[in-house]
Amino acid sequence: MTVGAAPLPRAEPGAQFLAEIREQPAALAGLLEHESEIARVAAAARARGPAFVRMVGHGSSDNAASYGVYAFGLLARWPAMRDSITLTVHYGTDFDMSGSTAIALSQSGQTPDVLEYLVRARRRGAFTIAITNDPDSDLANEAEAVIPLAAGAEHAVAATKTYLTQLAALALLAGHAAGHGRRIGDELRIVAGLLDEVIPSLVPRIAAIALPFAYVGRMFLIGRGAEFATARELALKLLETCRVAAQPLTATDLAHGPVAAVDSLFPVWTIASDDAALPAVLEAADRVRAAGGTLIASGDAAERIEGADYVLPTPRPPSPLLAPLLSVVPGQLFAWALARAKGLDPDHPRGLSKVTLAQ
Amino acid sequence: MTVGAAPLPRAEPGAQFLAEIREQPAALAGLLEHESEIARVAAAARARGPAFVRMVGHGSSDNAASYGVYAFGLLARWPAMRDSITLTVHYGTDFDMSGSTAIALSQSGQTPDVLEYLVRARRRGAFTIAITNDPDSDLANEAEAVIPLAAGAEHAVAATKTYLTQLAALALLAGHAAGHGRRIGDELRIVAGLLDEVIPSLVPRIAAIALPFAYVGRMFLIGRGAEFATARELALKLLETCRVAAQPLTATDLAHGPVAAVDSLFPVWTIASDDAALPAVLEAADRVRAAGGTLIASGDAAERIEGADYVLPTPRPPSPLLAPLLSVVPGQLFAWALARAKGLDPDHPRGLSKVTLAQ
Repeated sequence: MTVGAAPLPRAEPGAQFLAEIREQPAALAGLLEHESEIARVAAAARARGPAFVRMVGHGSSDNAASYGVYAFGLLARWPAMRDSITLTVHYGTDFDMSGSTAIALSQSGQTPDVLEYLVRARRRGAFTIAITNDPDSDLANEAEAVIPLAAGAEHAVAATKTYLTQLAALALLAGHAAGHGRRIGDELRIVAGLLDEVIPSLVPRIAAIALPFAYVGRMFLIGRGAEFATARELALKLLETCRVAAQPLTATDLAHGPVAAVDSLFPVWTIASDDAALPAVLEAADRVRAAGGTLIASGDAAERIEGADYVLPTPRPPSPLLAPLLSVVPGQLFAWALARAKGLDPDHPRGLSKVTLAQ
Repeated sequence: MTVGAAPLPRAEPGAQFLAEIREQPAALAGLLEHESEIARVAAAARARGPAFVRMVGHGSSDNAASYGVYAFGLLARWPAMRDSITLTVHYGTDFDMSGSTAIALSQSGQTPDVLEYLVRARRRGAFTIAITNDPDSDLANEAEAVIPLAAGAEHAVAATKTYLTQLAALALLAGHAAGHGRRIGDELRIVAGLLDEVIPSLVPRIAAIALPFAYVGRMFLIGRGAEFATARELALKLLETCRVAAQPLTATDLAHGPVAAVDSLFPVWTIASDDAALPAVLEAADRVRAAGGTLIASGDAAERIEGADYVLPTPRPPSPLLAPLLSVVPGQLFAWALARAKGLDPDHPRGLSKVTLAQ
């Protein structure tokens, strides 16, 4: 019998990343406990009469903002944009922001230029909202309203559960702004259940297909509409955990130049969800196949992509706008499995830390 | 003495692309002949009282729209965004667009979803402007106002002179909207002169440095603020003409993940212009150097990038907002030279045609 504390075994590389991917249904449930707060924030935003919604963030938070454009546009008919931080913070442009709702997204609540943007937006008359996993952060303190992600501590550098809860927070905020937040809340509870079912079955399936991609250095990820956020987020996962030059493109952008680079060594990951943008994604997939590229099809309409080399369908959500909360998961798991196949540790990408304090 | 028509010699691969890069000062002069029309369009937009500017386009036209965000923001204090075509055309969202100015950018004036967006935006109350190289196109016919690029015929698939004139058209439009269009016009005439001087000297210089990059498969291009448009446009040139997985990043985005992928085989092209966003670009360059990446420095502050492996300075424009019209040139020439070094024909990228009719 040994006495005293034995050194803890070093965790399996990627164990943290995988654990947090698996925790996403619980994280979503955590956010949903704050539904009434989100309803109050939406009412306050509505009371201020938003000319439009300005969203800012970096990395995964900026990808979530891409989703927010569709959440606000489709649910609330509010025009929304990913605003330029540079214009307000670096160039000091003194826009009148009265009537705008400014939403700053940051997992840590510490991103310096996002914080500075929020401070200036508030001074210029915007109604300011912080969406963060740390409700005691500087960002939360400076904002007039706070939506806590309540995702639990996220340790892996590559965000997963905070990204998913950011999407849900934006959908709930837009839903409540439009007066049918309760329906969105109910639908998100169904999504949490679907995630709970699908993640365990996807883990072994995706682990098995990652190996042939071990020497891949570049990829395209294609989505359109609300799923462009998924393409952006998965490209970022592959860049930071697998060191793959992974590039997000809208289905139509592919045809405007990038398709010229596709060949058999250039896999293309398509996100096909069953909504009005699907025909554009199917047409893009046709072009990739014609160029001889390896095609991976994911999303709830994955089976609609003809001739795909790999098909990774995800469950159909109660409404199409929530598809990105499900379609992101196969790509997160692919990044985890591919990093392992490449001998990399996705929990500790080289040169990154969890909180980024870059200018 | 031979009689009858001899077959024309097949042009040197890339001759067209290079010729059109060289024609950019003349194209800019062509646009400037339409200055009074642009002033009238700006007055009409102002009369309709823009809540904000919505810009749409694909490929190079979308990259020009990235620049437009800064042109309208800095000169006219008009909030401007790259609008979602998908939201309006595919999802059919019925936004009230009265008070908006909708600007559709298309070299050919034939891009189907850009045309459809403009038709719907007009129906929903926006003041619609077409910026196109074909003033007889469907897009021009459907718009309330037309700004002709007057760049002359562009034959190479990779846009150069139509991109440059799109930037100038947006700067002039924003300048006239703000009441100092005449100054912008004068400054653009100076820029045309600077381009005329610098292009001939850059051609041999850049041709000489492209060879070591012949086996490069991936690159990052970094800019911030107005120069993010340049990063996007140069990444597209490298993708379509050189089949390099070239990815544009803002200086701050680099630190939020992608820097983990940088190593000695992953060159990073930085665009450093002397404006308030320069410190962020310098910090990003430091991170690239620390990661062992090959650094190319361009722009009018190229010499400020410490330890760059290649330095390609461009002349300083009369005002910082016009820097992207100069800083784009070294990258265009690099794409031309690298395609030749790789044995590719940049005039005829595989799988592309000049007019893209993708959904």
